[in-house]
This record gives sequence, structure tokens and C-alpha cells, in this order.
Amino acid sequence: MIVVMKVDSGEKEIDEILKRLAEQGLAGHLSRGIERTVIGVVGQTYPELRDMLELLPGVEEVIPITRPYKLSSREFQPQDTVIKVGEITIGGEELVVMAGPCAVESEEQVLETARTVKAAGAHILRGGAFKPSTSPYSFRGLGEEGLKILAQARKETGMPIITEVITPEDVELVARYADILQVGARNMQNFILLDEVGKVNKPIMLKRGMSATIQEWLLSAEYILSQGNRQVLLCERGIRTFETYTRNTMDISAIPVIEKVSHLPIIADPSHGTGKWYLVAPVALAAVAAGADGVMIEVHPSPDHALKDGAQSLTFDNFQRLMEQLVNVAASVGRRMAGGTKG
Amino acid sequence: MIVVMKVDSGEKEIDEILKRLAEQGLAGHLSRGIERTVIGVVGQTYPELRDMLELLPGVEEVIPITRPYKLSSREFQPQDTVIKVGEITIGGEELVVMAGPCAVESEEQVLETARTVKAAGAHILRGGAFKPSTSPYSFRGLGEEGLKILAQARKETGMPIITEVITPEDVELVARYADILQVGARNMQNFILLDEVGKVNKPIMLKRGMSATIQEWLLSAEYILSQGNRQVLLCERGIRTFETYTRNTMDISAIPVIEKVSHLPIIADPSHGTGKWYLVAPVALAAVAAGADGVMIEVHPSPDHALKDGAQSLTFDNFQRLMEQLVNVAASVGRRMAGGTKG
Amino acid sequence: MIVVMKVDSGEKEIDEILKRLAEQGLAGHLSRGIERTVIGVVGQTYPELRDMLELLPGVEEVIPITRPYKLSSREFQPQDTVIKVGEITIGGEELVVMAGPCAVESEEQVLETARTVKAAGAHILRGGAFKPSTSPYSFRGLGEEGLKILAQARKETGMPIITEVITPEDVELVARYADILQVGARNMQNFILLDEVGKVNKPIMLKRGMSATIQEWLLSAEYILSQGNRQVLLCERGIRTFETYTRNTMDISAIPVIEKVSHLPIIADPSHGTGKWYLVAPVALAAVAAGADGVMIEVHPSPDHALKDGAQSLTFDNFQRLMEQLVNVAASVGRRMAGGTKG
Amino acid sequence: MIVVMKVDSGEKEIDEILKRLAEQGLAGHLSRGIERTVIGVVGQTYPELRDMLELLPGVEEVIPITRPYKLSSREFQPQDTVIKVGEITIGGEELVVMAGPCAVESEEQVLETARTVKAAGAHILRGGAFKPSTSPYSFRGLGEEGLKILAQARKETGMPIITEVITPEDVELVARYADILQVGARNMQNFILLDEVGKVNKPIMLKRGMSATIQEWLLSAEYILSQGNRQVLLCERGIRTFETYTRNTMDISAIPVIEKVSHLPIIADPSHGTGKWYLVAPVALAAVAAGADGVMIEVHPSPDHALKDGAQSLTFDNFQRLMEQLVNVAASVGRRMAGGTKG
Repeated sequence: MIVVMKVDSGEKEIDEILKRLAEQGLAGHLSRGIERTVIGVVGQTYPELRDMLELLPGVEEVIPITRPYKLSSREFQPQDTVIKVGEITIGGEELVVMAGPCAVESEEQVLETARTVKAAGAHILRGGAFKPSTSPYSFRGLGEEGLKILAQARKETGMPIITEVITPEDVELVARYADILQVGARNMQNFILLDEVGKVNKPIMLKRGMSATIQEWLLSAEYILSQGNRQVLLCERGIRTFETYTRNTMDISAIPVIEKVSHLPIIADPSHGTGKWYLVAPVALAAVAAGADGVMIEVHPSPDHALKDGAQSLTFDNFQRLMEQLVNVAASVGRRMAGGTKG
Repeated sequence: MIVVMKVDSGEKEIDEILKRLAEQGLAGHLSRGIERTVIGVVGQTYPELRDMLELLPGVEEVIPITRPYKLSSREFQPQDTVIKVGEITIGGEELVVMAGPCAVESEEQVLETARTVKAAGAHILRGGAFKPSTSPYSFRGLGEEGLKILAQARKETGMPIITEVITPEDVELVARYADILQVGARNMQNFILLDEVGKVNKPIMLKRGMSATIQEWLLSAEYILSQGNRQVLLCERGIRTFETYTRNTMDISAIPVIEKVSHLPIIADPSHGTGKWYLVAPVALAAVAAGADGVMIEVHPSPDHALKDGAQSLTFDNFQRLMEQLVNVAASVGRRMAGGTKG
Repeated sequence: MIVVMKVDSGEKEIDEILKRLAEQGLAGHLSRGIERTVIGVVGQTYPELRDMLELLPGVEEVIPITRPYKLSSREFQPQDTVIKVGEITIGGEELVVMAGPCAVESEEQVLETARTVKAAGAHILRGGAFKPSTSPYSFRGLGEEGLKILAQARKETGMPIITEVITPEDVELVARYADILQVGARNMQNFILLDEVGKVNKPIMLKRGMSATIQEWLLSAEYILSQGNRQVLLCERGIRTFETYTRNTMDISAIPVIEKVSHLPIIADPSHGTGKWYLVAPVALAAVAAGADGVMIEVHPSPDHALKDGAQSLTFDNFQRLMEQLVNVAASVGRRMAGGTKG
Repeated sequence: MIVVMKVDSGEKEIDEILKRLAEQGLAGHLSRGIERTVIGVVGQTYPELRDMLELLPGVEEVIPITRPYKLSSREFQPQDTVIKVGEITIGGEELVVMAGPCAVESEEQVLETARTVKAAGAHILRGGAFKPSTSPYSFRGLGEEGLKILAQARKETGMPIITEVITPEDVELVARYADILQVGARNMQNFILLDEVGKVNKPIMLKRGMSATIQEWLLSAEYILSQGNRQVLLCERGIRTFETYTRNTMDISAIPVIEKVSHLPIIADPSHGTGKWYLVAPVALAAVAAGADGVMIEVHPSPDHALKDGAQSLTFDNFQRLMEQLVNVAASVGRRMAGGTKG
């Protein structure tokens, strides 16, 4: 942490800073420039210290110089985290495809979709049983009934399942059925939920909040990691911007940024990232070209009859076509499809 | 809901839309323009219908024309909701001031602050016992111990207390102590929590999410209202934008917008809205001039020793000065301080 | 400027930085922390240096610690800039009201508006002769003919006029007619235009760009100031955010921020800031309560017949009502209306 | 255009709307729903009509249903615009690479870069002679001297050159040297400049403004097209969001969106889109996978000595490596490098 003094600050004010640092067991290292003095704080700092120092007389600004996240950083763990789910590994050389309906609507819908996406080469089945919905008057999911349908689809197809948990109380229940638990964008800063999934012995996929910075996202991952669960996947699903043509703005740069600053695997969700089915394929290909470890795609037997997010769901045919393209783009950047199913 | 057909769409596609609407018990009303045909949907629509229709062949765009929130709208209830908390009314002609520390740190800190802000004319004591914190390594509040300290301050000063609840499991506990329960910005779309506070017989103050549109905010209020709890206050606390000088960007227009479209009271939080103590007073005055029913102000005996948000907390002296200014500005727009304590 | 070294950087890399600084006539001051070394750059730095240093091996990050603007800063000039326009002063204790139609449409429209807003207490007449328009198919203004109409209104009413200039070639022409030249939001970074208005001996009102940070805005003011024209007014007119209810999001905090970091006067434009006539009055009052030196209000004899921005224009009656409220709010924060016309 | 009436509006108000429409030579088509009446406007509407109608009594909202841009739309011209520059075609099947330094600094720098990027397979040389710069104290380019250096590099290497024009007065000068004129992000709504480049018989590359919606961007293209210049290329270069890790947020979805709604070629600029050299390659590959017709890359012989934007410039080696990857990714989505130089 660096304390930048005001141009007109004096020795008395500098002494006050040094005294305050000493009270905290910290040292201050002075650097006197032409215009102003800067004090480097030496010792173990913490976020609130910034506010405290910034309020002292003569201080212009306090600048943190260490990243506030630790366990999720490359500095803490230089090698990639690779997560094993059944036969699949996520975060290594393989490219993983998660596919399925936005919401579990019926056994028939899920089974039909599961068989189709598996045949097309997908690895993990997605489907929501508990659905966060902007409006209380919208469909909120089938609950445990939905989880049972997913489990049945796993039994029949052998595909691991990923599904969302939206409240701490349901973590145990969802963990009983799911192979990967998803924490949704709206819950990225539901810290009690993060604590709870941090205690589970299953991988957690943490979606980026729609207005979360990359740093805040990693701090939320830190909640899970610091509870002892080291199997965390990150998922970029678009951020909120002024552009209204798309539902969100897919932050494609976040993929290589995460790869640089963190060892955690990064998945892309072009369905929520764009909100329009005809943008899903180009943005999925882009994500893989940018280095994503996997993509998550919404697929529905009949999108124009979907109870949720039909506009961003692919038909079976469109998903099949996307899988063929994904194999090619993955190969062009030196990756192979997981399981070698289609690569 | 209005279905805008593509320029080159034909009769067959229009028939398909009408058929689909009929299946849903809806009618379609055709309007043939020079360039394109537009179909007005007649009957009770629902949000997912938009996605469904937009996927049908020949459709350019589907435009919702009714607001998705109902119970919170002026159309549903033209007269203002006025909430009574002890001797104070919120949402009527009186201006209400909530003040206190960001976080409850100790009995001494809270009591000293409570006495001081009461003497200066504040009406409701704020203080957080459960603190959502971006980092798992930061202070997260004293929990129930903090609630007890707040209750003691109420006993001594007679001020009602407002405090945050961050997870559904704690709603009952917090409701036992608090006069008003606060749902924070990060939990605005924690729908299970909204359901829970909707079942409580205490007023709920719902803060706007940092990237929530006004419509989404009202839909979250709708969760609470639709559970039967009609005592909802809204709180504007700044939104996330590209500007980094301030912690958030206070959306001052949201105050008159809420007043126009909703009957619910609107409170302004300039402390979180700006993040810097020297901006709190001007923005608080602005909020009152714009029509806010109240303001919420962070005050700390010694901001440079605060465990949380010291940089945006007022000292006792600065709070005293702000109260004097608030009385004047309130009067200039035809409002008086609640309780007449200082007006 | 501060160079933060990577945790694993070594002496060789530090030497390289020091050598590079020496080549630029700068010194480096080392501060060795527990985790990493930080180098304070001593001497006159410049913006591009940051990029250069950040590319050197072993460097984690380079942090500028001086603000890049100078002439517009409070540090450079502690006392407020007060600009005299006719009998009016802007930036002192007086509150200034600029009012008139968005676009000059006809002699009758301008004269009628000028007489009415003057009678209601406005000080300066606004009106656009050259209109930047998002679409090439929209009304783009009457050009010089419009300037002549404004000049005639000034002659008749005695009100100084403010009008926009949109291209360098027109600066001389507009300066011949206008008392204050306005540079619009879309031209805030039209640097050649800024250079040109910097050579004129008339006050310039510089609107904030719709996605400009406060720092970038002050850097644009710096262009004008550094050409020798010290009569610069800033105008906050709303920024672009995700919220779509309002045309822009009025950044109310920008008013006290400018007052803190700069000596230049700050005007608020709630008409563009909100885009809806019924939000103009509450936001104008808020701006004055927050400390604005003036407000700019769009007024039209018949907003529903306006050629431009009718939705955000006040009728004569509504303007009259706003003026009465402004007098009260101004008084409540210790300001009087300019000229004492209505105060 | 659709006029949505308020729930409580009556026949008198509807008659008023119809009367007003009739005055404008338009018809109104009534659609009476359960809750409210909707009026479809039949005839040739224009943007300002919305404001006018919205101000009439009884009107809730006015919704435009036609896109305001015409010449740039796919509806106007279904087939792709293909632009020929020397031997290269842009907008067809070929992928085009523009590369070179941000700013022209010296003959040696430009020639060395030109030779290197050409050898690596680039097709068009970029370099700025007139540089828009946020600060008046930064390097603003060599001016005509810079244009001469570019012309010399073209002569020696045979590469066409693209360079920016920043003010209407310079259009003729720049057009004398450049093969493609660039209008930068800060000038996307410099309408006088757009008019001028619309009169030139050279291709124009129009960068997206940093807070421009896709619709506004196409409206700016419309300025150029409507002056008669149909050779317009669009360039996505990142938008401004709350994320600060990257300089801008590359809007990857904009690429397939443009392809869907417009016939104009779309180029991606990952250098400005990310602001960090190590993000340029993954985002360039992503852009090609998403369907971009070309990429524009900043390359410098010694980025840590660059006078401008060094942090986002590739070294020769990194550019060479990127070109090899681009060839592969282009092939994986069915495109070949222009000129077949490296494909």
C-alpha cells in the first residue's frame, strides 16, 4: 500500500502517518519526490487500512499495490487447476462442452435433449431446477423434482450434470444430485451461499456477476477456496453495459485475463452472454479461440416453446452444427475435444 | 405485447403467429403499415411469451408494452404508501434521517453515535451486524451480538433501528431485533431472501442493486409485496458506471422516477452513493431537493479508526452541520423534518 | 509515478528500470517491502512513460500519482474562476440560469421564448443554430440564420446568448454572434475544435462527454486553457449508463467533485441529463442543492411541436414554476439568483 | 411507430392523437386491448415525431419500430459490400490484416515495421500522423511529415496505407496520401467530419465510439453513405464499461451483430480493445472466429520506446507468431488470408 501525500503536506502530517502505521505494527518507507512525498507501507496490510489512512490529514490518496485475492492467484499457484468430473478433465488441454436446456421442464424434454447433445459430442448436461427469475410471476423451476429428472438423464446417458443452487439451505440437497454445482451471476456476492458451497466436496462453477469486476469475481472465488473447496471453475457470461442489442456484453478479454492472473479453469456461456440464439455460435467459437477451457450452451428441443430463455437456446440442428465448428476451432488453437468423442 | 413482422414476411407467417396466440388463449390484432405489419397481442401476456414469439418465422421483434411490475406501480395504487415506524412516518410529508455507523463495532461506538445523531435530529439508528464484504478476509460483522448492541441503543435513546439481513435463515432472528430490515444492494436479486422478508410483519428497505435497472428494482420489490408484506421502502445507493472517482454513481433521477411510477417511499444513501465523506453532504442535500423521503447517512465517532467504510463516514461535527443544512433544504421544497425535532 | 515490481523480480530487473529512468533524466527511489519492491520515480514524468515502464521485465504495474491536468486544478489556482458575461457573474455567489429552446427554429419561437424566460428571471438565452444530430435525416439547425435570430433576441431583451459551435471552421463565425460558445458532449474530445476555441476571447462552456471520466473532461478543458483562454465553464449533462428509463444518468456527484478538484465554474443541464420534461425540475433543484453555479434549461413555446428534443423541454408555465422553486432552493444553500432579478 | 396509451386515457385523447397524425399526413390504426389502447402509426415517420407524440395527453409511451438507418442495413442491400484496395478485397471471403505502429514516429521506425509486417503476411500498413490525444501535453503526431513517411513505406513495400483524419479541414490532405481514411472513435459523432469523408472517393474505416450503441454507429456510417461514398468499413475497438483491468471492453458480439444487420465489412482492433499487448493475440483470434473480415494490430520495433500506446503494441516476434495462429483460425472458420500470402 502506498500513501501519496498532498503537495502542501508537511513533516507533522508525515509523522502522524508513521505513528499510525507503527500502531498497526507496520513500517513506512519515505520517498521524497520533487512535488510530493510518498510513503510505502511495509508489512501485512488489509483492505480497511486504505480508508483509515486516506482520512488522515495531508493524505491525497492511498493506492493498494497487492491484489486482494490470494488462493485464486497465479502467484499462489503457478500451475493450472485441473478438475476431474467423471471421465472428463476441465482446465487442462481438453475442451469441455456443457449443454442442455435453461430450465428443466419435463422428463421428456430433458431426456430428449440429453441424448441429442451427447450424440453431438457434449460432455456435461446442464439444466436448472431452481431458477432465479427477475419477476415473481415467472417460472421458478421444478425444484427437487427437476433434480431427479437430471439424475435420471445422467443414469441413462452417463453424462455428469451441472445445476444451479440459489440458497444456502439447498446446498446439501443439490450436492446430493449434481456433479458440479453452479452459483449464478445474481448470487456471485451471496457470501453465505459461497461459504456453504465452499464446504462441499464437489466442483463449483462460479458465474461472474453482471456488474462484477474481474477482481471482485476472484474475491468471490476466494470465499469458496478459503473454505477448503479447491475445485472452482469460473464462468464468463457477459456483463451489463449500455448496449441494448444484446442481453449482456460478452467480455471476451476476461478469458485470457483469467488465464493470466489465475490458475482456475474458465468456461464461457455465450447463451446468456448474448441472449440471442443466432449470436451463440460465433461467440462460442470466439471464446474457444480466446482460450476458454469450455463452453456452456443452452439447447432446447423446441426453443419457441421453452418456459425460459427460449430466445437464446439452440435447436438440436444448430447445436450439432456448432459442435462441428467447435472441433475445428479448438484444433486450430491446439486443443482437442474432451474424451476425444468428436475431435 | 406487440409483434413487429419483418418487411418481407408473408401471410403464412402472420397466420402462424395468430395460431400460436390462439393456443395461448390470446388474440392478435393486425395493423398493416406501408412497410410492415404489426400484431397487437390482446389478452393476459407473460414475460416468456416474448421469447417464444420472437423465435417464430417472419418476426422482426417483440415489444412488451405493459410494465411487468404491478403491486409496486402507481397504476395499481395511486396514493403514496406511508409507513409508520414508532412515532415517525416515512413516505408522507416528513423527511426522515437514518444515521449511524456502517458496522456495529462495539457497544461504546454504537451508543456514543446513537446519542449524538439523536441529539442532532436523526430519527432512526442504522448499523450493520451482518456485513456483506467483497473479500473473505475483511470484517464481516458481530452477528447477533451486534443486534443486541443495537437493541440496547434503541432502549436508551428511543430510536427505532434499521439493520441488514443477508441470508434467509437469519430473517427471523434479525426481525426479532430490528424495526426495519434492510436488504442490501448485493442481495437485491437474492429471490429466496426476498420471499422470506415478504413474510415478515416489519418494514423492509430494499436497496437498488448496483447494476439494476429501475424496472428490475421494482420487480424485486414485487417479490416482497406479493408475499403480503406491503411495507416496502426503496433505497437508491448509486449504480456502477465507468466513472472511478466516486465509489458508485448516485442516480439522482431515480428519485423522481420512483415517485412517478411507484407509490413506495424512496430513501437516498449518499454514503454508499459517493464513497467519499466530503461528497456526502452535497449529495444528501441534492437528494432531498429532488424529492427523497429520507436519507441514510453513515456516521462514526472516529472515521479513521472505523472497521468498515471509514472513508465515507461523517464525523459527529460534519453530521451536525449536514442536519442544519438538511432542515433548510427540506423547507425550501415544502417538507419538514420528521417529528419536528429540528425543523 | 510508482513502479511496482513483480514478487519474483530480481536485482537485474531493478537495475534495468533505474538505468532506463536515468536515460530520461529521472531518478528512482527504492522501497523494499516484505513481498515486493516498489520504485518511486523522482523527476518530471509524462503520460507515455507509464506504458514504457510497464513493458520492462519484472514490472507488475505502474501507477501514476500526479493528476495529468494542471491549469484546471485547484492546486494550480486555489481561488474560484469567476467569469463575467454582461452584468452577470458565473462561478461566484450568484446562481445563473440559462434557458431557451434546444434548436433555433424561427424568429417568432426564439423571441417569444426569450421574452418569457427573461420575465421569469432567466439570465442567459440558449439556442442551437448548428445542431449535432445522431441521424443524418434529422434537423441540423438553421446555421448562420439561426445566429442572427439569436442576436436579434439579445438586442431586444438584453440577454447574453450561448450557442454551440460544432466544427473548427465555424468558431470565428459563432464567436462573432455568441457571448458564450458551447462545445457539446459529442465534441468534448474534438481536440482541433478545443484548440480553436482556446484562441477565442469569449467564455467557452465545455459539456462533459457522455462517457468521459471527470479526469478526461478536465484534460479537455486543459486544451482550451493551455491555448490561453482561461474563461472555461464546465457543464455536467449526464453520462451513459445501463439505465434506459432516462436518456442519460445525471452524475450529481460530479458537481461537488469539480468544485473540489477544479476552480472552474460548473453548470448543470438537467434537460439532457434526464431527457424527460417531468424530471427536469427535480434534477435542476438537486443540482443547485449540490452546489452548481448555474443550470441550463430547455424551454419551448410548444414542446409537442418542437423540431428537436421536445420531450425534455419545459413549457413556459413549467419554467416559471421551476424558477420560483430555484429561488428557494438557492437561498437554502446560501446562494442568490444572479442579478437579484427574482431572489 | 406505435403509440401506447395510458390505462386511464379516453376517447378524447385518442382523437387528439389521430388529429395530430392527420396533420402530418399520417394515419393511426387503433388496437384496443384489455388494459389499454395502442395506435399504430401508418405512413412515413421521422425521429422527432416520437418526442412530439409522447408529449400529448393520455400517451404512456411511443415505440419506434423501424430502424433509423437505411443505407447501411441488410434490408436495403442484402449482399455484402466488398471493398477493393489495391490487390486486396475486404468484406468477401478473404481475411485482411492491417498492421503498423500506433503513431508515425520516424522514417526508420515506419519502414522497419512495414517491411517486417509485410514479410509476416500483413496486407495494409497502419500508422497515425494526426493523433487525437486525451491530454494536450502528449504527443500529437508528425502531421503531413508523417503522411509522407507512410507514402514512402507504401512505395517501398507496395502495401496500401490506412491513416486517421481528425478534422474536416485535413480531409483533402489525408486523402491525397492514404488508401483508406480512418475516422477514430472520438470522432464517430463529429458529423461535419463524417460529411466531409462522405465526399471523398476513398474507403473510410469508421471506428465505433467508446460509448456508441450499434445503432448509433450505423447512423454515423449513414452520414458517410448518404453523401455518396459507399466504401465504408466498420471497426469494433472496444467500448467503455465499468471493468478497469482492460482499457476498453471488446464487444465481440458486435461482429456477428453487424454481419446480421448490415452489409458493411467489419474489422476488429484488439489493440485498443484491450490495451495490453498480451491480450491482443487471443482477442484477435476470437474476432476472426466470430466472423471479422479483418483485424488491425499495433506493432512497434521496440514497444517500450514507443511514443504512444506502447503497452498495447506487439513486438515483431509476437506479431509473427500471431500471424501464424491467425492463418489457422481463419482456416478453421472457412476463410483464407487475403492475397494468399500465408494461407
